[in-house]
Amino acid sequence: MADAPQKIQPRTLKGFRDILPELAIPRERLVVQACEVYRSFGFVPIDTPALEYLEILAGKGSDETDKQMYRFQDGGGRDVGMRFDLTIPFARFCAQHIGELGTPFKRYHIAHIWRAEKPQRGRYREFMQCDFDTIGTESLSSDVETLLVIHDLLLRLGFEGFRVRINNRKVLSGYLEEKGLRDRSVPVLRALDKLDKIGEEKVIAELEREAGMQTGDAQDFLRLTSVSGAPEEVLGEVANLMGDSALGQRGVEELRTVLTAARDAGVPDSRVALDLSIARGLDYYTGTIYETLLDDLPSIGSVCSGGRYDNLAELYTKQRLPGVGASLGLDRLLAAMEELKLLEARTSTASVLVPFFESERLGDYLAVCARLRREGIDVEFYPEPKKLGAQLKYADRRGFPLALIIGNDEWEQGQCQLKVLESGETVSVSLEGLASAIRDRL
Amino acid sequence: MADAPQKIQPRTLKGFRDILPELAIPRERLVVQACEVYRSFGFVPIDTPALEYLEILAGKGSDETDKQMYRFQDGGGRDVGMRFDLTIPFARFCAQHIGELGTPFKRYHIAHIWRAEKPQRGRYREFMQCDFDTIGTESLSSDVETLLVIHDLLLRLGFEGFRVRINNRKVLSGYLEEKGLRDRSVPVLRALDKLDKIGEEKVIAELEREAGMQTGDAQDFLRLTSVSGAPEEVLGEVANLMGDSALGQRGVEELRTVLTAARDAGVPDSRVALDLSIARGLDYYTGTIYETLLDDLPSIGSVCSGGRYDNLAELYTKQRLPGVGASLGLDRLLAAMEELKLLEARTSTASVLVPFFESERLGDYLAVCARLRREGIDVEFYPEPKKLGAQLKYADRRGFPLALIIGNDEWEQGQCQLKVLESGETVSVSLEGLASAIRDRL
Repeated sequence: MADAPQKIQPRTLKGFRDILPELAIPRERLVVQACEVYRSFGFVPIDTPALEYLEILAGKGSDETDKQMYRFQDGGGRDVGMRFDLTIPFARFCAQHIGELGTPFKRYHIAHIWRAEKPQRGRYREFMQCDFDTIGTESLSSDVETLLVIHDLLLRLGFEGFRVRINNRKVLSGYLEEKGLRDRSVPVLRALDKLDKIGEEKVIAELEREAGMQTGDAQDFLRLTSVSGAPEEVLGEVANLMGDSALGQRGVEELRTVLTAARDAGVPDSRVALDLSIARGLDYYTGTIYETLLDDLPSIGSVCSGGRYDNLAELYTKQRLPGVGASLGLDRLLAAMEELKLLEARTSTASVLVPFFESERLGDYLAVCARLRREGIDVEFYPEPKKLGAQLKYADRRGFPLALIIGNDEWEQGQCQLKVLESGETVSVSLEGLASAIRDRL
Repeated sequence: MADAPQKIQPRTLKGFRDILPELAIPRERLVVQACEVYRSFGFVPIDTPALEYLEILAGKGSDETDKQMYRFQDGGGRDVGMRFDLTIPFARFCAQHIGELGTPFKRYHIAHIWRAEKPQRGRYREFMQCDFDTIGTESLSSDVETLLVIHDLLLRLGFEGFRVRINNRKVLSGYLEEKGLRDRSVPVLRALDKLDKIGEEKVIAELEREAGMQTGDAQDFLRLTSVSGAPEEVLGEVANLMGDSALGQRGVEELRTVLTAARDAGVPDSRVALDLSIARGLDYYTGTIYETLLDDLPSIGSVCSGGRYDNLAELYTKQRLPGVGASLGLDRLLAAMEELKLLEARTSTASVLVPFFESERLGDYLAVCARLRREGIDVEFYPEPKKLGAQLKYADRRGFPLALIIGNDEWEQGQCQLKVLESGETVSVSLEGLASAIRDRL
């Protein structure tokens, strides 16, 4: 006998993973729900290619994203890269199309990105990003709306306990300006961004070392960022700390406008917090900034973050495009839902399994299933006339709520047995009244 | 004055494109509708990485797909490729996970694939694929179901006039077996697959040249494939032509079973055609095969094609995995809808635009919008208090059906002006009764 040909080992690349139904089903639901929320505010979808000219991507993020980018030469000798975020492709997109699209332009983009990060538990080299932005306006109305979208997103995805923390870069910059440290804002903000992770002492050390701050100034600065209490009081106190800095005072006013309008629009105070310590390490934010923590799992970090920027696409066009937006961490949210046991174990998409056992009745079974589908009930038909036990075991394993059993006796009487799988309860139902009997049990 | 830094030319790679809202909106709708249909039959979603080890992909499609594959060495020195279809990753996926998932396993997968094809009008190097398969069963029930899914998909996506053409590889192979030409099935099927494109005469020439057929046999073969008429008659005639070939007779029986059960399940005869000329060039189909043509645009080719195969994942596992499935050509359908003028020109996702003109009323406007959203109405708020004319022009350009105008007088009276943009008709509505007034006009 000849040797069987050698099998190729089936495996995914390091840092990559398959998404099995138990994760793909809730992920698909989250995507659909997120789209519904975006659309309810008039955001429109777009898509851009996974591959871009390298010159579009390289040197546009950080040193880190540059290093982590998948890049190669294509068959035509072009240097190309796989996108590592959705912001840079969006900037390129706007530079090309904004004339045709007009402003304001509100888009969302849900797509995969790739980063060759060092693989860690829960971190992958391919993940789904879910961004939304409003481009071409400086109106604070869009800053408020960004907060409303984040709020509605979290609610729609099934979270009740969460808090959107907001800050304004102008407050931080104004304070530094007031202290004559304006030119050191980059290292200052980078240090501040680590506060949650490394603690006050180390941040002060970094402020001294990297931003050349005096110890006293560094401590004062951290005091500013830790002012807390009811928003009105915090804003008053912070306004005092801003002194003569016009920039800082403007930041305070912007925060006040955003907080007031969000409250008017129905966002409960418990879900918004003014937090002067959040900085969002990236340098390009210039106004409102957002982070979102889950009450039950703050350790997972921010699940929706973003901010306002002055000019999105300056590398690609002379047209100035201010905007504001945020990014929903879909994979992080899914991981949180898994940890919080919010994901159903069910891996069926249909609610009803119809076992197949009278093999000469194939057309009849399929006709019943088709009729139920037309009534809006999702039905899976088991493809083989196996023993009933094996088919019900399949239904149990996938977590079907109901099974619909029709044998020859039932076919002759126009009846069927509707079985609730969790309780084992079985009722006899006429084929006519089937749809409503099923709906009553879902 | 210093020179402004040189701008990078914003452009996409040759053969790639951005998806603007006018296309992204209907594409998103098609994807959601397709998912609903798949789920209504109990198919479950999965996802696999865009990148695979090169050895998983290379040499698994055709010479052409090998040549068109984007491949490179990653930072860790691994040879990797970007997937060029969803079938090979699915085979690899099943080899890895089917033990855990169990059979039958019904999955759908909607994802991008990449092929460095020669760019042509309407052909891109990145496109969205939309596959569904039932794995781990040889039951013809799944062949019928595949036909039902194709039928429901097209209906759900808004097509009334279409026809699923079905054939069975066993009929073609049985006939060749009967004629002593079984070993030449590959070149024969390849030639047959070109019938629509190059015509009878050239196919006969190719059958002679590539498959070594006698002219008479080639003509007989084409006669078989052109038998037409009511399914029962065609099947009878074809059964005769099969002679003693057990394989051929089994093919006829399978076609009969599929056609009969599909009719029982409610698929109208007008939407299914037995067509012995379809071959689906690929070699791996072994039973039922499917193609789908749009009545109004047959020239665009098949929009949903597939078939039954004996063993999905033999390159990666010893476990035999028979199955049946098909692939929905989402981008081709979108192009068809564009050509048939089935796409709305509208590029807004919300139904109502709320112009902003009393700037001190920001919170009030946002509160009205939030209330409407809670009632299920999608509302976009214009972010800047510009002149009404400019805001209504924006609404017109995006194709909003309605605008909701609230000025200071209206605020004071608890009223608003609801404007139907196409007709220009404006009615005065109380803020209380707003949601139903809007619903009446959508």
